[in-house]
Amino acid sequence: MSLRREAESESGLAADDLRESWRLLAPEDRLEAFLDLPRPEAEDFFLELSSRDQYEMVRAIPPEQRRSWMRLLAPDDAADLVQGAGDDEREALLALLDEQTRREVMALLAYAEDEAGGLMNPRYANVRADVNVDEAISYLRKQAREKLENVYYVYVNDADRKLVGVVSLRELFAAPSDRTVRDIMSTDLVTARPDMDQEELSRLFAAHDLQAIPVVDENGRMRGIVTVDDIVDVLREEATEDIQKIGGTEALGAPYLQVSLLEMVRKRVGWLAALFISEMLTTTAMAHFEAEITRAVVLAVFIPLIISSGGNSGSQATTLVIRAMALGEVRLRDWWIVIRRELASGLGMGLVLGAIGFSRVLLWQALFKSYGPHFLLVAMTIGGSVVGVVTWGTLAGSMLPFLLRRVGLDPASASAPFVATLVDVTGIVIYFSIASTILKGTLL
Amino acid sequence: MSLRREAESESGLAADDLRESWRLLAPEDRLEAFLDLPRPEAEDFFLELSSRDQYEMVRAIPPEQRRSWMRLLAPDDAADLVQGAGDDEREALLALLDEQTRREVMALLAYAEDEAGGLMNPRYANVRADVNVDEAISYLRKQAREKLENVYYVYVNDADRKLVGVVSLRELFAAPSDRTVRDIMSTDLVTARPDMDQEELSRLFAAHDLQAIPVVDENGRMRGIVTVDDIVDVLREEATEDIQKIGGTEALGAPYLQVSLLEMVRKRVGWLAALFISEMLTTTAMAHFEAEITRAVVLAVFIPLIISSGGNSGSQATTLVIRAMALGEVRLRDWWIVIRRELASGLGMGLVLGAIGFSRVLLWQALFKSYGPHFLLVAMTIGGSVVGVVTWGTLAGSMLPFLLRRVGLDPASASAPFVATLVDVTGIVIYFSIASTILKGTLL
Repeated sequence: MSLRREAESESGLAADDLRESWRLLAPEDRLEAFLDLPRPEAEDFFLELSSRDQYEMVRAIPPEQRRSWMRLLAPDDAADLVQGAGDDEREALLALLDEQTRREVMALLAYAEDEAGGLMNPRYANVRADVNVDEAISYLRKQAREKLENVYYVYVNDADRKLVGVVSLRELFAAPSDRTVRDIMSTDLVTARPDMDQEELSRLFAAHDLQAIPVVDENGRMRGIVTVDDIVDVLREEATEDIQKIGGTEALGAPYLQVSLLEMVRKRVGWLAALFISEMLTTTAMAHFEAEITRAVVLAVFIPLIISSGGNSGSQATTLVIRAMALGEVRLRDWWIVIRRELASGLGMGLVLGAIGFSRVLLWQALFKSYGPHFLLVAMTIGGSVVGVVTWGTLAGSMLPFLLRRVGLDPASASAPFVATLVDVTGIVIYFSIASTILKGTLL
Repeated sequence: MSLRREAESESGLAADDLRESWRLLAPEDRLEAFLDLPRPEAEDFFLELSSRDQYEMVRAIPPEQRRSWMRLLAPDDAADLVQGAGDDEREALLALLDEQTRREVMALLAYAEDEAGGLMNPRYANVRADVNVDEAISYLRKQAREKLENVYYVYVNDADRKLVGVVSLRELFAAPSDRTVRDIMSTDLVTARPDMDQEELSRLFAAHDLQAIPVVDENGRMRGIVTVDDIVDVLREEATEDIQKIGGTEALGAPYLQVSLLEMVRKRVGWLAALFISEMLTTTAMAHFEAEITRAVVLAVFIPLIISSGGNSGSQATTLVIRAMALGEVRLRDWWIVIRRELASGLGMGLVLGAIGFSRVLLWQALFKSYGPHFLLVAMTIGGSVVGVVTWGTLAGSMLPFLLRRVGLDPASASAPFVATLVDVTGIVIYFSIASTILKGTLL
């Protein structure tokens, strides 16, 4: 939150160097380089760190220095830091704070980290409705001198601490001196409840283009503000989580290079093993068709091509739907619209790919005589199977996120690899069923 | 940017209803519902729309009403709207603006939409360094009365319009009245060049936790500010683009339900067809091993299982690396660190999956006598191939984003389906090579 840095300091470069090499340094080296910085630079550097890194630093520095570092933090940032600590350390960390901040931090800790209540800052600019503009500005100057972190909007509370209006600082500045705050305040408010999920909160910010949103409890009392810069971090985190899930891994929860090798394998191998075991169904399915493969080995040759066309179209559809859901563009009740669109898209794309597959067989036959006298039937089998598998893959991939959300799971768990695995098994069944129908009496 | 809405209006519900149903409405219905809103609500609603939707609305409303809607917009928003119009319409839209705004918008249009210059707002709070705090606050109130959109930081320019310092409004408010701005301003500045890419800009915001960053040209002159709320939109867009690319589709560039069916198929089938044609290499590879399959059909049965294990581990690795690159956690020069980590992870995960595959063969042999007298060799073939394919898939998936970035392409193009396809072909070769070695003289 601090823009102020010491330009005149001679080791300005050192801070930038440290920023640059931070993610590659071992914990001991981080501490050493950090403690080497001149104090004002070290403070700015500390404030820019993620709460995870702040926690690591506070833990690493000598106990007698910890207090001043903890007290640099705004209540919401201190709460994030404390949240990252084990239960046994929390008390000790909280004890480092001053009385007022400790009370505020403990109130924030009651909320989950990913809810509005856990993101909000309990210190915000507020005035009464009946003061005039000049008085309001003087009063804000007084609040700023105490511990105010941000001033974008000034919130108007009544005697009961109920939120009754808001005025932007711009509007306050622009208003004639003798108008009262009540005259210029807006009373139609966009507010969040303390337990609003951070993803929903980020949609609220995006929809209303606000700098800050007040958090109001069930009694209409204002508890704090969430500012848009906290939402920037939320959006990055949420997108990272979704992308990692789509890629078929547990969310890492920390920067790539900071996760230990063992932890990395642990987070990744679980999903891979689950997918591998599910994919064994393809082996079972294939075993059913061993007789067909023995009679017409040419069928085996096309298996990877056909099942991957289903997997790819499924990955694509599931990714589009997951993202559209995350952005609020598509909701649960839109499933019927989506199913019709995806059926049509899947069929269209299947026909294009099917035609390519059909031509491939004819071309190879013309060039190399690869497929014998029944080449036309083989071409029809391949073309037809691709149409079926792509249509089915698209449909399954698009519906899976709806199913997952319907039963209360995260739609992003419908990862591309998961859909591909699901579609592989059914793809084999579709392929061999079509082959049996078309090739019966000739190759089979 | 407006928090002000008319609470007393009777049709407050109508605006919320419209907001709710907007994405499902046809263009004609949108216009009708929009024009039905009381003016103040319609204005707020308009300001909350995306620039794409704002453009559609301006185009749809009767020509004589267009001016007042265009003039509601801040210069950067007006520029975004005009950017979305065809070349033939731009002139007409620009003509609706007042002279000053038109000049500012045209200056903004010189920058690409996804650069700092295209995101910035040319109206910002500024003062001279030698005024005192009281004078500065009065001067800001005067600026606010004119056309200032945001006040977080007050920028200090010298006589040459060069940026020399910055003071946050909080600091200005908190300072004693008689100090000069020079005394309290910070001179170590975080700035952006007009041509800085929006992704880099968003990392700058995240690293320094700032509300706004000044855009400064090569001569040190300040051109405008980019505010963090614009970055929220950027982050959502960038994450959507990356997710869609990872899922193996062109970025849609518009909300899912607003893309026409034909456009949707066009954007998706290109990648699918490219993948399908690449995947045909598996058919060619398989054809090489037709003799082996004829002799040991059991090999064909495991093909989907083995190649999918490579595809899944590759998708996982590529997704993790792409995201880590987008967040700036991993850079091009880190490739050597990544390759070592991924080799170790891949081998570790391969051994786990290989052991599962090995056990599967032994189990089925014990239960169903599926694999004949040479079952142990079959189990070794499957186990060994899975180790090889998973290790290779992980390595290939993690290195592909580096290769793409090295040659100047977007690493996110290394989509999960692309990696899976790449690994499928090599997976078949690995599998049959291992099978030939282990089974020579028995099954083969």
